[in-house]
Amino acid sequence: MKAKRVRGRIVIEFSSEEVAKVVYEAVLYEHLSVPYRRSEIKFELEGKKIVIDIKATDSSAMRGTVNSYLRWIKVAMDAIDI
Amino acid sequence: MKAKRVRGRIVIEFSSEEVAKVVYEAVLYEHLSVPYRRSEIKFELEGKKIVIDIKATDSSAMRGTVNSYLRWIKVAMDAIDI
Repeated sequence: MKAKRVRGRIVIEFSSEEVAKVVYEAVLYEHLSVPYRRSEIKFELEGKKIVIDIKATDSSAMRGTVNSYLRWIKVAMDAIDI
Repeated sequence: MKAKRVRGRIVIEFSSEEVAKVVYEAVLYEHLSVPYRRSEIKFELEGKKIVIDIKATDSSAMRGTVNSYLRWIKVAMDAIDI
């Protein structure tokens, strides 16, 4: 059994527009360089928020995409602490 | 660095309301029995769709929650094939 359609939206809000921009730009590099054929992804900066819109072919593709983006965001946030 | 707020919405659309209901009820058992203190989760059936709304305290909590729910949904879908 496969789902007909799997959609997702993740919104990460930061304390300031500056922090959101730094994290966004770090992850944008990954977003632009890795091709995801199983998901269609919009990755946007909206003020203090990073918005990720995902259309996936199935639940596993959705899981993989969410994992990749949230991991990259975590790495970028941890880097800001150093 | 921590995000101020992390929100997510995952919508899984099935071929029919019947299939959506079977998968939903299988996962509902897990939803009701596992406490997620780091995320606030609404898990709903809307016709052919399962809708998961998540408010997480950080990106890692969001990732953990998305992983759990999408894994349970995958297990339920695989069980329908048998």
